[in-house]
Amino acid sequence: MKSPIIVDLKFPPDAVARALSGAFPGREVINMADPANAGRDLSGIDYALVWKQDPTLFERATDVKAIFSGGAGVDHILRVGGLPENVPLVRFVDRSLTDRMSEWIVLQCLLHLRQMPAYLRAQAHRHWEELAQPEARDVTVGVMGLGVLGQDAARKLKVMGFHVVGWSRSAKAIEGMQTFDGDGLDDFISQTDILVGLLPLTAETRGIYDRSLFAKLRQGGALGKPVFINAGRGGSQVEADILSALHDGTLRGASLDVFETEPLSQESPLWAEPNVIVTPHAAAASDVAALMRHVEAQIARHESGLALEHVVDRTLGY
Amino acid sequence: MKSPIIVDLKFPPDAVARALSGAFPGREVINMADPANAGRDLSGIDYALVWKQDPTLFERATDVKAIFSGGAGVDHILRVGGLPENVPLVRFVDRSLTDRMSEWIVLQCLLHLRQMPAYLRAQAHRHWEELAQPEARDVTVGVMGLGVLGQDAARKLKVMGFHVVGWSRSAKAIEGMQTFDGDGLDDFISQTDILVGLLPLTAETRGIYDRSLFAKLRQGGALGKPVFINAGRGGSQVEADILSALHDGTLRGASLDVFETEPLSQESPLWAEPNVIVTPHAAAASDVAALMRHVEAQIARHESGLALEHVVDRTLGY
Ligand SMILES: NC(=O)c1ccc[n+]([C@@H]2O[C@H](COP(=O)([O-])OP(=O)(O)OC[C@H]3O[C@@H](n4cnc5c(N)ncnc54)[C@H](OP(=O)(O)O)[C@@H]3O)[C@@H](O)[C@H]2O)c1
Ligand SMILES: NC(=O)c1ccc[n+]([C@@H]2O[C@H](COP(=O)([O-])OP(=O)(O)OC[C@H]3O[C@@H](n4cnc5c(N)ncnc54)[C@H](OP(=O)(O)O)[C@@H]3O)[C@@H](O)[C@H]2O)c1
Repeated sequence: MKSPIIVDLKFPPDAVARALSGAFPGREVINMADPANAGRDLSGIDYALVWKQDPTLFERATDVKAIFSGGAGVDHILRVGGLPENVPLVRFVDRSLTDRMSEWIVLQCLLHLRQMPAYLRAQAHRHWEELAQPEARDVTVGVMGLGVLGQDAARKLKVMGFHVVGWSRSAKAIEGMQTFDGDGLDDFISQTDILVGLLPLTAETRGIYDRSLFAKLRQGGALGKPVFINAGRGGSQVEADILSALHDGTLRGASLDVFETEPLSQESPLWAEPNVIVTPHAAAASDVAALMRHVEAQIARHESGLALEHVVDRTLGY
Repeated sequence: MKSPIIVDLKFPPDAVARALSGAFPGREVINMADPANAGRDLSGIDYALVWKQDPTLFERATDVKAIFSGGAGVDHILRVGGLPENVPLVRFVDRSLTDRMSEWIVLQCLLHLRQMPAYLRAQAHRHWEELAQPEARDVTVGVMGLGVLGQDAARKLKVMGFHVVGWSRSAKAIEGMQTFDGDGLDDFISQTDILVGLLPLTAETRGIYDRSLFAKLRQGGALGKPVFINAGRGGSQVEADILSALHDGTLRGASLDVFETEPLSQESPLWAEPNVIVTPHAAAASDVAALMRHVEAQIARHESGLALEHVVDRTLGY
């Protein structure tokens, strides 16, 4: 008999219920959002699909053999803690999520390249004036994080004409692109005009986008001053430093989808900065139906003796 | 001895002077912007590079063997008239101009796909709310005009994930893309969610983007209602029809770089329409230095007995 699967996803409950109907054929789903499951015995169950899970979940679900993350990032799961050691934690990786993230990244890079913040202000004043602007090939986009999302964004940015360089912990060989490993950060940063953040949040990447990093970006490139774009995690950015870098001219603009605290406080000055674009952690929403298909496919691999894919290294934290 | 070249470009004179210095080595340049050339005998000269030329220019330059356009479109040159028959008129085609146009087109398609007008309004109100949005593959972009610019834009839109279809006067075979010829307009339009205009202005394309065309666009596609984007020529659009289509819900938004009259009048309601982006005919400015290199290369072809490229069909008007 197929083992049941525990589902503890702090997503809008209706969306989860809709995605679960018809999912996991032949397998019982124990949805923790259902009050009927509150006191249920969870021992002997092989699988759990979680996002901001209950901190005591794994005190009850003592026999899980694989844990699936409801999102691409696992910081919200590791932070809750209580996960059994040596049980694989599987990230959510999905074609649609990747495509949406690249849409958002390319859109934000083009917005700044093509001076849209200034053009929108001119439009509001009914002012017709062509602005000087470089073309994409004269601008270097530096992508921090060359994982599933960073590599797809980098490829599409190159098609749009940008000069693209990349940085990741371990060295990568990507055709037609100069890449840097952990030690090469300064070389990478000093040639970057538009910095794109697609890093997971870990102990090492917390607060990495700070004043000292912004100060090392290329000044006097084709855009004049550098731009900062972040769609990884807000915990990696120091918002006070972004603001002061914008004010003292270290940065010329920013596009932020993620924030130190979400939702972004109504009081944050970021909302009203002239060359800052704020979106509400919407760069690449997890499609819950696609999530269920992904988990089914990984369980099928596991049960036919194949290795699980996208397993998190819990020492590294991603 | 090399024939001189007449230059009559109604561009900012400083930019022309800068681009001319060092251009056309070994060849005299007769810049009509220089008052010293006002009364000059222009007979016996082989070449002219023009943009909104003086209407009497070719009464004086009676012996030109090739005329070069300062821009990609030649409507401003044909409208002035007075061109000698049977003398080839060469368009300006340039890698940089093409890349810039595709930057602008992809930017505008992504802006509407990713609901940026609504997100920017939310930002102005410090309002955090994720909006429902389809992904690019669920949206069909229909490109009208599959010339140098339309084909490059279509290719890049496909890389970004959009479903792309195309329309042109003569049938085209483009791998991985459904295309329609002149007669297929209704079939093309009825499946289009985002209409991209990259047509030249000719007798046939004047006023083509009108109420009857907008009414045939797909309603109820993934974006709900269709979007109109134009970077060809303003003479092809009926602005009163764009406005009424926006007001009665036939269109959900528009991005316009070109207008019936330029600069766009301060009184135009288009400036203040909620989902309309206005840019000041800046999608793909001609780089005057690149223009000089292009003309030099075409003259070199001509003088070595090769055929000129990008010659306009004056019957068709493009
Ligand atoms: N805003 C949104 O809507 C949204 C949606 C989905 C995901 N995200 C965020 O995007 C992040 C990235 O997703 P992904 O799927 O691309 O992750 P991934 O495949 O795990 O890639 C992570 C990349 O970051 C690099 N990295 C990690 N720690 C590093 C360090 N200390 N120094 C240098 N490089 C480091 C990794 O280097 P190696 O290649 O050497 O391992 C890898 O290239 C997720 O963790 C999530 O937080 C945001
Ligand atoms: N906004 C800006 O900054 C900017 C900058 C540069 C250019 N432009 C405009 O963009 C236009 C297009 O440039 P391009 O270099 O791509 O021109 P192109 O190479 O000459 O291509 C024109 C395309 O339009 C099609 N076409 C022309 N008349 C048609 C008709 N009556 N019905 C159907 N299709 C028709 C042609 O069909 P066939 O393939 O069958 O010939 C061709 O595919 C220029 O003419 C110019 O007005 C604007």
